Amino acid sequence: MGYQEFTIEGRNAVIEAFRSGKTIDKLYVLDGCQDGPVMTIKREAKKQNVLMKFVTKERLDQMSETGKHQGVIAVAAAYEYAEVDDMLKAAKEKGEPPFLILLDNIEDPHNLGAIIRTANLAGAHGVIIPKNRAAGLTATVARTSAGALNYVPVAKVTNLAKTIEELKKEGLWFVCADMGGTTMYDLNLKGPIGLVIGNEGEGVGRLVKESCDMIASIPMKGNIDSLNASVAAGVLAYEIVRQRLQA
Amino acid sequence: MGYQEFTIEGRNAVIEAFRSGKTIDKLYVLDGCQDGPVMTIKREAKKQNVLMKFVTKERLDQMSETGKHQGVIAVAAAYEYAEVDDMLKAAKEKGEPPFLILLDNIEDPHNLGAIIRTANLAGAHGVIIPKNRAAGLTATVARTSAGALNYVPVAKVTNLAKTIEELKKEGLWFVCADMGGTTMYDLNLKGPIGLVIGNEGEGVGRLVKESCDMIASIPMKGNIDSLNASVAAGVLAYEIVRQRLQA
Repeated sequence: MGYQEFTIEGRNAVIEAFRSGKTIDKLYVLDGCQDGPVMTIKREAKKQNVLMKFVTKERLDQMSETGKHQGVIAVAAAYEYAEVDDMLKAAKEKGEPPFLILLDNIEDPHNLGAIIRTANLAGAHGVIIPKNRAAGLTATVARTSAGALNYVPVAKVTNLAKTIEELKKEGLWFVCADMGGTTMYDLNLKGPIGLVIGNEGEGVGRLVKESCDMIASIPMKGNIDSLNASVAAGVLAYEIVRQRLQA
Repeated sequence: MGYQEFTIEGRNAVIEAFRSGKTIDKLYVLDGCQDGPVMTIKREAKKQNVLMKFVTKERLDQMSETGKHQGVIAVAAAYEYAEVDDMLKAAKEKGEPPFLILLDNIEDPHNLGAIIRTANLAGAHGVIIPKNRAAGLTATVARTSAGALNYVPVAKVTNLAKTIEELKKEGLWFVCADMGGTTMYDLNLKGPIGLVIGNEGEGVGRLVKESCDMIASIPMKGNIDSLNASVAAGVLAYEIVRQRLQA
C-alpha cells in the first residue's frame, strides 16, 4: 500500500500514457526540442494542464532510468490498492473494533481526498470504494488528502452491497448517511462499524441502502438539501469518534 | 443579500470586465464572428476557462438589455454582502442565541462554498470573512455552496479581531479551532457563539486567536496534521448543534 511516483520515458511511451488517460503529474522536456512527436506531447500536456519543465539533456540523462528518454520524461502517479481483509487485521492488531468508511460512488476527487484525510484522523482502518464510475486514486486525490493517502488503506471492490454482506459476517454493523433516518446522536455507533457515504448528487444507492442496518441523519435546519459529501462524512465519522471516546 | 447574475454587453465592456478580474460565468459570442476585438475576448475567455457559447444574432438581440451587444454578452456574478448587525437581528427574531462562523483567511473557494453550505444546515445566522487575502464570493463559491449562498448572510469586515471584540460586547463567546486546545466535547458551546476557523495552511492568526475565549480541538488519531478546513468547520459546527439540541 502507498502512493508512489514513477517515470515514463521515451516519446511513444509518453504519448501512449497521455492517450490512455493515465494521470501525469509532471512532464520534463528537452529544452528547445521542436520536432513532431515532441510537439504532439507538448500539445497534449497543455490540453491536460500538466506541469511542463524544460530542462537540459544532462538533467534528462540524470533522471532517466532506461537511458532512452528521447527528450521526454513524464512523472505519473501509482497507487497500490489494499485488501479489505488487511483493514480488519489492522484493527485487530490495534485492539480496536473495526471502523471502515465505504463510499458509494463519490465522483469528485477533492471529496475523495478530503474523506481519506478524515479517515486517517478519525482513526478509521480503511476506505472502500467501488470499481465503477467512482473517482479513483489520482494525483488530485493524493494532494487533497494532504498525505493521508500514504497511511489510509483504500480497497476497490466490484460490488459494494456484496462487500457489506461479507463484512456483516465478520461482525460489522453498517450505517448509511441519508435523509429521513434516525438522528445520528440517537444511534449506537460504538461497535465494529462501516459508515456508508453516498454519491454527491444521488446519495446512497438503493441496494446498498437496503444492506445497511441503520440510516443515520445529520440534523438539518436550513433551506438546502444536504451537506457537501466530505463534510457529511466528517460529521458522521466524528459522531462515531465521540461515541467511542465515551465507551 | 443574495447572489445574482447580471450581464455585461458590448466589446469594450466585456474586455474591461475580463481585465478587471471580475468573475465571468459565461460568454455568449456571435457565431462566426472573427474580427479583432472579438478574437481578443475569445482568447481571454479561453485563458480564464470561461464557458463560451456561440449563438445567433437573434439570440443575442433577445438576451440584450441595452440593444448594443456588438456580438458579445458576458454573464457575471454579483453578491451583496450583509452587515454583522443583521445577523444578530435575525438570531433575535428567531429567538435563538446567535451562532456566527468567522473565517480567518480561508483561501480556497471550494472550502468557502462548503462552509457556507454547512452554515445554512447547522443553523448559523451568518458567516464573517475578512476583506484581505481571503476568497471572496465568486461563482465557484456560489456553485459549491449548492444554493446556500442565497440564504446565508455573508459579511466582509476589515479586521476580524476588532469584530470579535465588538461582538463580545453583544454577549457572544468565541471559540477557535486549533491544535493543543481543549477537546471540543469538554467545552460548553451552548450560548451565543462565534466559531472561528483558520486558514488552510496556517490555521488561526495570532491576534485573532488571542481574542478568542476558548480553543477547541478535534480529537485526532492519525498521522497527518489537520482535517480539510471545510470538514473541520463542519465537525465543530455540528458539535455546537449537538450541544444546543441537548439544552
